Amino acid sequence: MEVMRVLHMNKGNGETSYAKNSTAQSNIISLGRRVMDEALKKLMMSNSEISSIGIADLGCSSGPNSLLSISNIVDTIHNLCPDLDRPVPELRVSLNDLPSNDFNYICASLPEFYDRVNNNKEGLGFGRGGGESCFVSAVPGSFYGRLFPRRSLHFVHSSSSLHWLSQVPCREAEKEDRTITADLENMGKIYISKTSPKSAHKAYALQFQTDFWVFLRSRSEELVPGGRMVLSFLGRRSLDPTTEESCYQWELLAQALMSMAKEGIIEEEKIDAFNAPYYAASSEELKMVIEKEGSFSIDRLEISPIDWEGGSISEESYDLVIRSKPEALASGRRVSNTIRAVVEPMLEPTFGENVMDELFERYAKIVGEYFYVSSPRYAIVILSLVRAG
Amino acid sequence: MEVMRVLHMNKGNGETSYAKNSTAQSNIISLGRRVMDEALKKLMMSNSEISSIGIADLGCSSGPNSLLSISNIVDTIHNLCPDLDRPVPELRVSLNDLPSNDFNYICASLPEFYDRVNNNKEGLGFGRGGGESCFVSAVPGSFYGRLFPRRSLHFVHSSSSLHWLSQVPCREAEKEDRTITADLENMGKIYISKTSPKSAHKAYALQFQTDFWVFLRSRSEELVPGGRMVLSFLGRRSLDPTTEESCYQWELLAQALMSMAKEGIIEEEKIDAFNAPYYAASSEELKMVIEKEGSFSIDRLEISPIDWEGGSISEESYDLVIRSKPEALASGRRVSNTIRAVVEPMLEPTFGENVMDELFERYAKIVGEYFYVSSPRYAIVILSLVRAG
Repeated sequence: MEVMRVLHMNKGNGETSYAKNSTAQSNIISLGRRVMDEALKKLMMSNSEISSIGIADLGCSSGPNSLLSISNIVDTIHNLCPDLDRPVPELRVSLNDLPSNDFNYICASLPEFYDRVNNNKEGLGFGRGGGESCFVSAVPGSFYGRLFPRRSLHFVHSSSSLHWLSQVPCREAEKEDRTITADLENMGKIYISKTSPKSAHKAYALQFQTDFWVFLRSRSEELVPGGRMVLSFLGRRSLDPTTEESCYQWELLAQALMSMAKEGIIEEEKIDAFNAPYYAASSEELKMVIEKEGSFSIDRLEISPIDWEGGSISEESYDLVIRSKPEALASGRRVSNTIRAVVEPMLEPTFGENVMDELFERYAKIVGEYFYVSSPRYAIVILSLVRAG
Repeated sequence: MEVMRVLHMNKGNGETSYAKNSTAQSNIISLGRRVMDEALKKLMMSNSEISSIGIADLGCSSGPNSLLSISNIVDTIHNLCPDLDRPVPELRVSLNDLPSNDFNYICASLPEFYDRVNNNKEGLGFGRGGGESCFVSAVPGSFYGRLFPRRSLHFVHSSSSLHWLSQVPCREAEKEDRTITADLENMGKIYISKTSPKSAHKAYALQFQTDFWVFLRSRSEELVPGGRMVLSFLGRRSLDPTTEESCYQWELLAQALMSMAKEGIIEEEKIDAFNAPYYAASSEELKMVIEKEGSFSIDRLEISPIDWEGGSISEESYDLVIRSKPEALASGRRVSNTIRAVVEPMLEPTFGENVMDELFERYAKIVGEYFYVSSPRYAIVILSLVRAG
């Protein structure tokens, strides 16, 4: 599987599109807002001289969330400046995602964004307002590698993206005295599961560590000393990668696939061979890679639970939420739609476009039944880092 | 007509797409190559210290030409560096067009571009090569206004774009003691013609002067002192804007439209009201605006003829090219396709999608007949400017 080609949200504006099914991701952005605002304030206070700020949102996707993060960032900076008694700096904003992302959607939304940001400024020509202080560009490419010129950024943001790996992990195997790469032998599963061999666990962890190291090293080149990153993504609180919050969305999707294999609708071998390019990291793993890479210090590392529909969870409501059967099934449907909008493009090449409706119909039911007996949660990592130097 | 929305090339890869019908524009890029290479050499020689160069291609469109100009620029710089005995600088490349442009096409072509540019470099992660020296971003917006941060660019290139105006010109009229804007009263025509009222000539010239002034002023903010621009676009050698090379492609298109109006297929009033947001400027007008704006000095101003199919014309072959009738009609067909790929999106809202095939069928014949009795040419302005300071 070429992750570069298949890792993109469902395009367009239809019922199964990401644009229509991205409330959970929007909630994750909101969840990280406090930490992001804090980081921006610290950045502005320690860079009182700076007249031009480079900002990047990595994995911006396409849909209502694409401009949400940068809107928040621009608003926060605009609000901070009067408090800090300084003029609003020029903002150089870059929106990044893989080349297969629907950038046309973003480009078409930009005029409205500019109207809002440059509100009340006099026009110059027919394009943008005069005296602009915000310049947005789209930067297609993988964030597991260099994307921006050296020391051109002050602030990097990324939400709901870093749990995606650069490639499907593979394990090392011996063949005729040579070490070769081989499939994970992850039978009947599509992500780490209690039945997965230890070699699969190890391969997934290694792939994440490699990718996250490359991510940090690339950003360390691009950020100015003292520059900051706020990253939020799906992770786990346990050391064990097979707990419910670490992997159950994949576990249930594998159940749906296997039920179709049992009926001969899809081939079981394809499920055995398919593994999702995803990893839910623990805070220990994150700290280990950050320390090993060495360019960043951790300002904050928080892990917050949200339910699978993206709702935040307060301490009081942490126990099982009692749902009626219809409520549970409705939740299952919504979660299925949310996950379909994200993973359909990577499932289609293996299992075929024609089985997708059936697959997510079954998945909706399985998730719905699960909601009736459980209150499944994701663990959202919110990481605030400072570029040393 | 909202130019921002309708000024984009025909999308996709089909028979009437710009991607399939942009040889003429490609030839215009080639025609400007010598002047561009010269400007890049002068830029590099006068900036021997610089380690990061900002480059923008304005009006990049989408199709095989989108990356052609920046490929040429990158190649030229890569070739110049050994000659000048200096390392290749970091290249920050921006591709600009209006937000309605098909940026997805460009983004999808970028991995291949990077492979070529960063050839033979070691990989880092799965995305781009390591040790990269070229970073490309897409910048949606109108170049008749600010697009880039202050003093962030060293070299600006634009080909086959600056003959497009920011809006359809309108004239001033008196109504109840107030000056109002009114349509051009350009009956039966869609651009300046021998039958157009003088007020239409004046309105077109004024719109171009305003737009070009805003263009220069915007770029003057964005370019570093000593920065350079090479601009190529359709213009005219005569003072008279109604000569063949100035306007005949529109004259013949108006003929095709009028023939359909005579048969009741389209309404004549719509032709009267429609005017193309286009202007072929003379070198006198260009010099006048450049001088008035004041930030740039002219290094070169050349005007070269090319035939309507984009073929360059040597001194010897400047006379009438004799074509057989089938040859002339084939030329007419190709020119019709080239022009359709560019102007169809702006004609459709007024005249309707359903008449486009018929319109360009007639246009192909009219142009073909014209090729049989004439050898029509465009006048390509090639302008090399230096940012003063």
